Amino acid sequence: MSKPYVLGIDIGGTNTVFGIVNARGHIVASDSIKTKKHTNFDDYVAELHESVERLLEANDAKDKIQGIGIGAPNGNYYTGEILNAPNLPWGPRVQLAEKVSRAFGGIPVAVTNDANAAALGEMTYGAARGMKDFIMITLGTGVGSGIVINGQIVYGHDGFAGELGHVIVKRSNGRMCGCGRSGCLEAYCSATGVARTAREFLELRTEPSTLRNLNIDTITSKDVYDAAMGGDKLAKEIFNFTGTILGEALADFVAFSSPQAIILFGGLAKSGDLLLKPIQEALDKNVLNIFKGKAKLLLSELKESDAAVLGASALGWEAKYRADMASQIPMSVDTPEVKE
Amino acid sequence: MSKPYVLGIDIGGTNTVFGIVNARGHIVASDSIKTKKHTNFDDYVAELHESVERLLEANDAKDKIQGIGIGAPNGNYYTGEILNAPNLPWGPRVQLAEKVSRAFGGIPVAVTNDANAAALGEMTYGAARGMKDFIMITLGTGVGSGIVINGQIVYGHDGFAGELGHVIVKRSNGRMCGCGRSGCLEAYCSATGVARTAREFLELRTEPSTLRNLNIDTITSKDVYDAAMGGDKLAKEIFNFTGTILGEALADFVAFSSPQAIILFGGLAKSGDLLLKPIQEALDKNVLNIFKGKAKLLLSELKESDAAVLGASALGWEAKYRADMASQIPMSVDTPEVKE
Repeated sequence: MSKPYVLGIDIGGTNTVFGIVNARGHIVASDSIKTKKHTNFDDYVAELHESVERLLEANDAKDKIQGIGIGAPNGNYYTGEILNAPNLPWGPRVQLAEKVSRAFGGIPVAVTNDANAAALGEMTYGAARGMKDFIMITLGTGVGSGIVINGQIVYGHDGFAGELGHVIVKRSNGRMCGCGRSGCLEAYCSATGVARTAREFLELRTEPSTLRNLNIDTITSKDVYDAAMGGDKLAKEIFNFTGTILGEALADFVAFSSPQAIILFGGLAKSGDLLLKPIQEALDKNVLNIFKGKAKLLLSELKESDAAVLGASALGWEAKYRADMASQIPMSVDTPEVKE
Repeated sequence: MSKPYVLGIDIGGTNTVFGIVNARGHIVASDSIKTKKHTNFDDYVAELHESVERLLEANDAKDKIQGIGIGAPNGNYYTGEILNAPNLPWGPRVQLAEKVSRAFGGIPVAVTNDANAAALGEMTYGAARGMKDFIMITLGTGVGSGIVINGQIVYGHDGFAGELGHVIVKRSNGRMCGCGRSGCLEAYCSATGVARTAREFLELRTEPSTLRNLNIDTITSKDVYDAAMGGDKLAKEIFNFTGTILGEALADFVAFSSPQAIILFGGLAKSGDLLLKPIQEALDKNVLNIFKGKAKLLLSELKESDAAVLGASALGWEAKYRADMASQIPMSVDTPEVKE
């Protein structure tokens, strides 16, 4: 086999994107299907398999896939399942790895959540190449995180570690969060959090702002970005407010794992200095002395559309490696006991 | 060599305790010297070496020490140094591992901070046996932490990770902390934090309390404990206040690394249900749904006086292992390159 490939699959709320990835981390070809077309999970897997096979044939990659990696909301590395994902239609528990592996004739499959997949992509192909300790923060509709310590994704004892979007940044009178609690980082520093801040600021304050020309109920983080880039003072303050809260939270994360870098990823991370400057200022101001100036604040180096597929593909190589290792363990031989 | 030993050394602000530990984790013999007798570090090492040699001879353990592990405030695992330890007299940077190893004729030495040593002790001999993911919180004069993920202490990229006593639990009007910032967990949930809470409560409130019979300036956490055990309502509220803040913080730590257990250690942890009940309640109330009921709240199973020495001794075995591995790497052979 001269050219081994892996398959990276990113299951999003709207689209499922998959790519054939080579050993150098190039996406040779990719395609997508609609995630929610089938409410029956087996039908979804069947369509996914069919579409992938078409792509493999068109690219002379049939029988060359060594492993499959999948990033999915609430995907669990240990069980290979998706558990209670609020935006997926297949019920509370889906045996993702098992069913996909079976559909593909037994190719090893590994699963993780979308933020961990992005962190894997960044470590393997992006801004975190060569780093053993970093934290990836994904700033999208929500706030996700993938934590790498000693070169490994932190899965925790149950596979669900790394929910930094749900640390509490405001203990009293915090904003309600989708998780049912209040005051979470996600309620302030996601794209929707920025829009909520805009609504709050516009209601509570009286300064003029070009944002007042918009319908307050449908205002988005993109609107705030455009206004700030156009010089709107209130819009800039919204970014300062957001970045300060995030920077304060990052200072606490640094006290936990002392990462070499914190890498920002996702739509909101594209706001550039509008967001980065207040984050960096709050981080510098709030971090414990012993860590001052150490953790670098970086932007993802991967195209957002590629990162999840590349990260999942890195997991595909891991699935292949795990399967190879497992096949080498002679199951019936007694482990020799070491005597003192 | 029929009976290999390691040496565990715990450098505290007052005493340096050392113990000869066997492969089963029994402290065969131990002794101590005063940490601050010598302001010259070489003199300290010379006295330590002399005292240890005496203990080894008395216990027929000479030439049987395989490795030396040392827990010290601000001890750094990567460099083997102590950096800027506020309570030690030897200056800002001390080459601990190197000098101790030299004094002991080249026996491998590994260093970590005191809280990490306690976590290692707990993992090897205590309540965390068999666990790969847990967090140790040390509640003493300060609040320290040792974090274990995937069976390894989290050192971070610089060796200083795990400063959970310095996450911010009160963003505005927080108490000044010894670290120079304000609102740190340590300023509330250490023994001194409890005493500060007592002073605040006594000044701001008017209820009767047996604590009012004491000199408010010298009140200790032990006084508050005694009063609470005697039924004093205000003293109990002080523990509720302390436990609630700690439980809320623990809920955030769970979101980071999803540990199997959180283990409490140190003087204040001996307050029993007075402290454990409010911690558990706040943890249950504040933890993200996906983690509910998962992380167990446990007390250390090691005698406080033994834990640090045992933990350091576990590190001694690691030092021995590292040295053995290093001696097996042929340094002059080129690493073969893998071609695609």
